[in-house]
Amino acid sequence: MLNNITQSRKCKSPPARHTFGADKNLTQMSSLQNEFNAYRQQMNEVILSKDNLVIKRLWNLDTNTYAEGALSTRTKEMLGLVASMVLRCDDCIKYHLGKCREQGLSTEEMYEIFAVANIVGGTIVIPHTRRAAEYWEELTAGH
Amino acid sequence: MLNNITQSRKCKSPPARHTFGADKNLTQMSSLQNEFNAYRQQMNEVILSKDNLVIKRLWNLDTNTYAEGALSTRTKEMLGLVASMVLRCDDCIKYHLGKCREQGLSTEEMYEIFAVANIVGGTIVIPHTRRAAEYWEELTAGH
Amino acid sequence: MLNNITQSRKCKSPPARHTFGADKNLTQMSSLQNEFNAYRQQMNEVILSKDNLVIKRLWNLDTNTYAEGALSTRTKEMLGLVASMVLRCDDCIKYHLGKCREQGLSTEEMYEIFAVANIVGGTIVIPHTRRAAEYWEELTAGH
Amino acid sequence: MLNNITQSRKCKSPPARHTFGADKNLTQMSSLQNEFNAYRQQMNEVILSKDNLVIKRLWNLDTNTYAEGALSTRTKEMLGLVASMVLRCDDCIKYHLGKCREQGLSTEEMYEIFAVANIVGGTIVIPHTRRAAEYWEELTAGH
Amino acid sequence: MLNNITQSRKCKSPPARHTFGADKNLTQMSSLQNEFNAYRQQMNEVILSKDNLVIKRLWNLDTNTYAEGALSTRTKEMLGLVASMVLRCDDCIKYHLGKCREQGLSTEEMYEIFAVANIVGGTIVIPHTRRAAEYWEELTAGH
Amino acid sequence: MLNNITQSRKCKSPPARHTFGADKNLTQMSSLQNEFNAYRQQMNEVILSKDNLVIKRLWNLDTNTYAEGALSTRTKEMLGLVASMVLRCDDCIKYHLGKCREQGLSTEEMYEIFAVANIVGGTIVIPHTRRAAEYWEELTAGH
Repeated sequence: MLNNITQSRKCKSPPARHTFGADKNLTQMSSLQNEFNAYRQQMNEVILSKDNLVIKRLWNLDTNTYAEGALSTRTKEMLGLVASMVLRCDDCIKYHLGKCREQGLSTEEMYEIFAVANIVGGTIVIPHTRRAAEYWEELTAGH
Repeated sequence: MLNNITQSRKCKSPPARHTFGADKNLTQMSSLQNEFNAYRQQMNEVILSKDNLVIKRLWNLDTNTYAEGALSTRTKEMLGLVASMVLRCDDCIKYHLGKCREQGLSTEEMYEIFAVANIVGGTIVIPHTRRAAEYWEELTAGH
Repeated sequence: MLNNITQSRKCKSPPARHTFGADKNLTQMSSLQNEFNAYRQQMNEVILSKDNLVIKRLWNLDTNTYAEGALSTRTKEMLGLVASMVLRCDDCIKYHLGKCREQGLSTEEMYEIFAVANIVGGTIVIPHTRRAAEYWEELTAGH
Repeated sequence: MLNNITQSRKCKSPPARHTFGADKNLTQMSSLQNEFNAYRQQMNEVILSKDNLVIKRLWNLDTNTYAEGALSTRTKEMLGLVASMVLRCDDCIKYHLGKCREQGLSTEEMYEIFAVANIVGGTIVIPHTRRAAEYWEELTAGH
Repeated sequence: MLNNITQSRKCKSPPARHTFGADKNLTQMSSLQNEFNAYRQQMNEVILSKDNLVIKRLWNLDTNTYAEGALSTRTKEMLGLVASMVLRCDDCIKYHLGKCREQGLSTEEMYEIFAVANIVGGTIVIPHTRRAAEYWEELTAGH
Repeated sequence: MLNNITQSRKCKSPPARHTFGADKNLTQMSSLQNEFNAYRQQMNEVILSKDNLVIKRLWNLDTNTYAEGALSTRTKEMLGLVASMVLRCDDCIKYHLGKCREQGLSTEEMYEIFAVANIVGGTIVIPHTRRAAEYWEELTAGH
C-alpha cells in the first residue's frame, strides 16, 4: 500500500492526471491536492504508528498553534504560510495554502503574502512562489 | 562619527545605560531601541550614500511591501515579524517588533506570533524569542 | 494549459524524453532545459497576470542586478550561481547555470564555482551539485 | 547513459516499480534505494571525472569524518543524519538512513532521532520526516 | 531587574570579568557560563509569565526530547549539539555544550562532533566552532 | 590569555577603542579589524591544538579553494563573500571583505556584490549588509 502512494507521488500516470485534471470538470479536488493529501495522510499514519511520544505531542501542538485565540485562525494560517515560504518548504506551503483557502483568502490577499515572502526571503523564494501559485490555481479553479 | 555609533552598539557604557534604563523613567525610548535605531540610521546613511541603484530600489520596495492593500499594514507587519523570526534575524525582528507596536498589537497577540514562529521554526528559535521578548518588554514598558 | 505544463514537469512521458533526449541529436535544447524553461515561463505568466506591484518590481530589479556595471554580467552571474548553490535552490541554480553558459564559462571554471559552494556550504551542497552537474552536462552537450 | 539515469530518477516507469516493489519479494534493495543509489553513483562519476582537486579532497574528507574514532561510526552516522534532517536535505537524509541501517539502528532509535530533528528544527522538518520514514520503511522491509 | 541582566549580557564590566575570570580560581562557573545562564533564566521567566500555552508545551516537550529512551541522553545531547551547530545558533550550542559536559564527553569526542558539523555545514560553521571551542574551554577549565 | 581575548571581543574597553579608533590616525588596522583578527587567531590556535585531523584538513582545503586557478583569487574571494552574505555569517563576511580589499576591489564593485546578496537573499540580508558596510568603511578608511 505504501508503494502505491509512493509511486503516485512521484510519477502520476499521465492518463490518470488527464482524468482528474484538464479534461473534465473538477468536482472536488484537483490532482496536485489529491496527490499531496494522499501521500501526507499515508505517511502520517506510518509515522504515528511508531508511537514516538515526542513526535505525537509536537503534532498535536502544531494543531493547537493555529486555533482561534487573541489572533484569528485566519491570521495564524497566513503567518504559517509566510513562514513556510521564507523557509522554502514546498509541502508546508501547500498545507497552509489549503488552510488559507478554507479561511476564504482572496487571490489578491494571497499575492500580498507572496510579496512579503519574496521581499523578506529574496529571489530564491521565486521558484517556491511558482509552485505555490500553481497549487493556488488548482485550489481556486472553478471558483 | 561612525566609530561612535559602532562603539555604542557593541559596548554601551554602563553608566549611560543606567541613565536611560533602569534608574529613571523612560520618557520616550528605552536603551535597546535607542541603540538599534541609532546604528540602523547611521549605517543606512552610509549605504545609501554609495548610490547603488539596486539597493536603493530594493529598500523602497521594502517600504511598499508593508503598505495598506488587500491586507492591512497591521497584518503585513505580523507577516514580516514571523518571517524574520523563523529566519532568525535579530535586527529584522527588532524592526518589525517596533512596527507591530506602532500597529497596536497586544502582548497576548505578540506571544501567539512567537508561538507560531517557535512551532514552525523549532527550538532554535527560542534564543531569538528571548531577545524578542526582551525588546518587546522595552517597547511596552510603562504602557 | 497549466495542467499540461505541470504534468510535463513532474512526469515527462518516457517516450517523449527519448524523442528529445538520448535517441536523437540535440539541435537546440535538451530535455531538462526544455522542461525547466517551459514551467518557469508558464508560471511566471500566471504570477505576473495577478498584477501584484511589489512582485513585478522585484522581478524587474532582479534583472537589473545582473546588468553590466562596475562588475561584469559574467562575474555577477557567477555570484548569483554560488549564492543559489549555498542556499540550495535547484531551480535558481539551473537558471544561473544557463546564464553562465551564455557568458561562456568553461567546465573547469564552473567546477571551481562548485568547489567554493561545497566548501562554504558543506557536504549538504553535494546533492545539489549532482543536479547542477547533470544540468551543466546538458547545457554543454555537443560543444 | 546519463539520460537513462536522469529519466529513471524522475519518472520510474510504473511497471518497473511494480516489479521491484509491491508485487514481489524484496531480495536486496527496494526501488527508492535503487533509484537513489544509481543516480548518486552516476553523477558522482561525472563530477569526479572533472578532476577538481578541492571537490575530490572534500569528498575524501567526508568519508574520514565518519570513521571510528573517539566516537563510534554508529554515533557519527546518527550525527550526520540529524544534521541532514534539520538542514532539510532529502538526499543527505537518505544517504545517512542507509548508513544508520548498516550500523544496525532499530526503528525505535531512528524515531528518537526524528524526534530530536523535529523539535530542534520545527514543523518544517515534518515533510522531510515523511520522506525519511518512507525510505526507512523500505530499508527495513522484510526484516 | 531585566535591565541589569541585559546589561551584563552585552557588556560585562571589565573589572567584574577579571574578578570572576582570569585573575582568580574558578570555583564553580566561569564568566561566559554565568552570563549565558543568567540571561537565559531571566528571559525564560519573562516569557513563561505570559502564559502562552503553545510555548509552554513546546518547552516541556523540548525537555522530554532528551530524556533516556531507546537512545541515551548522552547520545541525544550530542544530536542536539550537532543540530544546533549546523543551524548556527550560538546560544543553542552553548546550552548543549553544557549538557554534553554534564554527560561527561571528553574534549576529543567533542572535537569529533565539531568535525561532523564543519563537514556537513561547511566553513560557515567555523566562526560558530570558534565560539563553541571558547565556551568548551571554560566548561572544562581546571579539569 | 584566552580570557583576555574573549573580553576584548565582547566589550572592548572604550578607552582602548578611542586609542585605535576615532581619536588618532589609523596607521595600519582599525579597531573592528584588530578585534576580529585577534579573536580569530586566538581561537584558531585553540582549535588546531586539539589535533582533530578532519578539521585540520578542512581548513587547509579552505585555503586551497581560493587559490588561483581557472578562476582568479579575486573572483573566488567575491564568490566567498556573496556566499557568506546570503548565508548571513558576519564573521565569514568580515574575513572575505578583508580578502577582497587585499585583491583591490573598489567600493563600487563591493556594493554591486552587496546588491546581488540583497536581491538573492532578501531583506533579511540588510542587517548583515550594514555590518559589512561598517567593516568596509574601516578597511578603506584613509585610502
